[in-house]
Amino acid sequence: MKMMTLDEKFLMLQADNAPGQEVRQEAGAIETIIEGKKLGGIPVDFSHGDVDVHPPTPDSDAAWNRGFKKGGCQAYTEYRGALEIRNELAERLGHFTGKPIMAESEIIITPGTQGALFLALGATVSSGTKVAIVEPDYFANRKAVQFFDGEIIPVPLNYEDHSDERGIDLHVLETAFINGAKVFVFSTPNNPTGLVFSKITLNSIAALAEKYNVTVIVDQLYSRMLYEGEDYSHFRSSNSENVKQITLMGPSKTESLSGFRLGVAFGSADVIEKMERLQAIVSLRAAGYSQAALDTWFNEPEGWMSQRIIEHQAIRDELLEIFNGANFETATPQAGSYLFPKLPPLKVDLYTFVKLLRIQARVTVTPGTEFAPQFTSHIRLNFSQDHNAAVDGARRIVKMVEIYSQKTEF
Amino acid sequence: MKMMTLDEKFLMLQADNAPGQEVRQEAGAIETIIEGKKLGGIPVDFSHGDVDVHPPTPDSDAAWNRGFKKGGCQAYTEYRGALEIRNELAERLGHFTGKPIMAESEIIITPGTQGALFLALGATVSSGTKVAIVEPDYFANRKAVQFFDGEIIPVPLNYEDHSDERGIDLHVLETAFINGAKVFVFSTPNNPTGLVFSKITLNSIAALAEKYNVTVIVDQLYSRMLYEGEDYSHFRSSNSENVKQITLMGPSKTESLSGFRLGVAFGSADVIEKMERLQAIVSLRAAGYSQAALDTWFNEPEGWMSQRIIEHQAIRDELLEIFNGANFETATPQAGSYLFPKLPPLKVDLYTFVKLLRIQARVTVTPGTEFAPQFTSHIRLNFSQDHNAAVDGARRIVKMVEIYSQKTEF
Repeated sequence: MKMMTLDEKFLMLQADNAPGQEVRQEAGAIETIIEGKKLGGIPVDFSHGDVDVHPPTPDSDAAWNRGFKKGGCQAYTEYRGALEIRNELAERLGHFTGKPIMAESEIIITPGTQGALFLALGATVSSGTKVAIVEPDYFANRKAVQFFDGEIIPVPLNYEDHSDERGIDLHVLETAFINGAKVFVFSTPNNPTGLVFSKITLNSIAALAEKYNVTVIVDQLYSRMLYEGEDYSHFRSSNSENVKQITLMGPSKTESLSGFRLGVAFGSADVIEKMERLQAIVSLRAAGYSQAALDTWFNEPEGWMSQRIIEHQAIRDELLEIFNGANFETATPQAGSYLFPKLPPLKVDLYTFVKLLRIQARVTVTPGTEFAPQFTSHIRLNFSQDHNAAVDGARRIVKMVEIYSQKTEF
Repeated sequence: MKMMTLDEKFLMLQADNAPGQEVRQEAGAIETIIEGKKLGGIPVDFSHGDVDVHPPTPDSDAAWNRGFKKGGCQAYTEYRGALEIRNELAERLGHFTGKPIMAESEIIITPGTQGALFLALGATVSSGTKVAIVEPDYFANRKAVQFFDGEIIPVPLNYEDHSDERGIDLHVLETAFINGAKVFVFSTPNNPTGLVFSKITLNSIAALAEKYNVTVIVDQLYSRMLYEGEDYSHFRSSNSENVKQITLMGPSKTESLSGFRLGVAFGSADVIEKMERLQAIVSLRAAGYSQAALDTWFNEPEGWMSQRIIEHQAIRDELLEIFNGANFETATPQAGSYLFPKLPPLKVDLYTFVKLLRIQARVTVTPGTEFAPQFTSHIRLNFSQDHNAAVDGARRIVKMVEIYSQKTEF
């Protein structure tokens, strides 16, 4: 395998289209190709959730202040995080995921779930390691594997509603394992589509991973925001006892604690140990005082989480109605706050359209190509927004598609 | 060059002797080889500073709370950090280091100075890159270079007091550059010795780096805690205009803001750009709310910093008297709060002695081998402690050396 040069790597890591980085793009020439007037309305940034509208867990700032007052012992925790906090989390996360976690050896606190992902891949992937990756899936999966000189084996996801074969094709996955994949990384609910992997599928993945000695890294970041009528299964409580595995979670999304930069990884002790060694040179530890805010995680006031889910389900349903009404193929997310609509054919390319959306319609979205190169007609929206602003923003997207539709040229 | 396997890499990254990680060591067999009684006294952890005794900058917690109240815009900054904060920092750090910094392109906020170091090396070192590294110097320099499959070319530091040739031998450095080093990383003040590189030396380094097209990464983490009668020069305001370079700093040490995990890197825009791309997959950004505490950095109340320096100088001087009085060769740090005494010959190896210190004498220090493998007789102390506790701790170290001295066997 030919390794990328540093310059090639950093070209691959180009991040201007990444969520939240749009501010670094030059608007420049876009102004000259705008058709029609600029659209009014409240600006909506669908690249990430709006934590002013859906605020952080109650008491999270007070918990931070308690941590600050504790002083040095909270500032200088073990690299894997304060033992006292790991004890609490191990119990709550063990309960949530249906399998006990050893606080001493099986869990690490990281700077965000992103930090957990980077450490998990850094602990398992090096030059030439083959990694099976779902497409579409979170962009950093692919980018981190490439940074570590790993080799990606894509596993397509069938996420369309009403299909009999939603999910991944297990034969494709097995072929990837036969072809040498040593790591499999995927998210459930899937980012960007909201598809939840079924218990049957997770059991099959576990059986294949055991058979072919594959380490499984499963990103369950959004598993708490589960919509009415849906079931959720955790990989770690599937029949995966003999599989080397890491589960990633964090309070940045559903609980809106992104500003604290907190995540966790839990699973096989030997991988956790390597992740801590890597953390020792990457950033030492998640910010000590921030760690104290984990006291509020899985510890929210009665009814808080169900209310948050109800609010998001209402936004989801109205946006789905708008997009499907305009014939944008859009799967119904079973969990999480992402929508991944497929746009009808446009007379401008996706990047141009996304820029036009931002400049002309004051709507920021993430291009589908961040989730795999072939998604050149998709956009991703994080609909954790003010309900009315999200609805208006969705309507402006439909309006913009009408303006730039290929059909208007005929 | 043969690349390390993942297992070899993580063996190299073994972190149980790293500062702050001692809690993970098994005390075990140590108890059985203790000679004499356990020593009394207040436990002292010299592996890092005591932020309860030397507390964080006044108002830093209030600044965090202001950031939290700002909400989403503070939680979701650009990956390189909030522009408003970068504007302030660029001005203050430009003033401090004697050369202007462009806030837009030449500075990035990171999760700790550790984070800045990891990103700077990740942006410049890949498989086979030769890196000149000072010995002794901060342990993560070597570890990160090895993690990125780079190759280390050591450059010894002569740090002994009263030597005519304190500093690095520039001929050795030039030989490293001739032999293909493309990156040079060093700290000034040096960690662990407190040696400050002279202006003449920095100018010579700059001239060599320009001649051989070497990127310079200079860790100036401790440059503010400069003792009476000492001069400090910044690499970026040496004659280094044409040198690709990054300066690392942060408020974790002198200002005791370690619990916020904040650092900065500033310098060549193309390296900063790569560092941000890497940060996008490593941890996204320094914790948004924490970033707000940078408002207090280089913005302390009148007299606060000079008082902090006076206190540390008093501890330094008394510890030097104790160690030199016991014939431990110990260089006088010109800046920072580290001492690096060389112990007389002992009848136990360094790791055993360091464990004995912890169990028998309640004193935690970092073994010299963390700073380069050959320092098997040295220990490092961060003397940013309670004055009396530090003095008592130093006396217990002397006592322990007496107990385990080779001489007692004759």
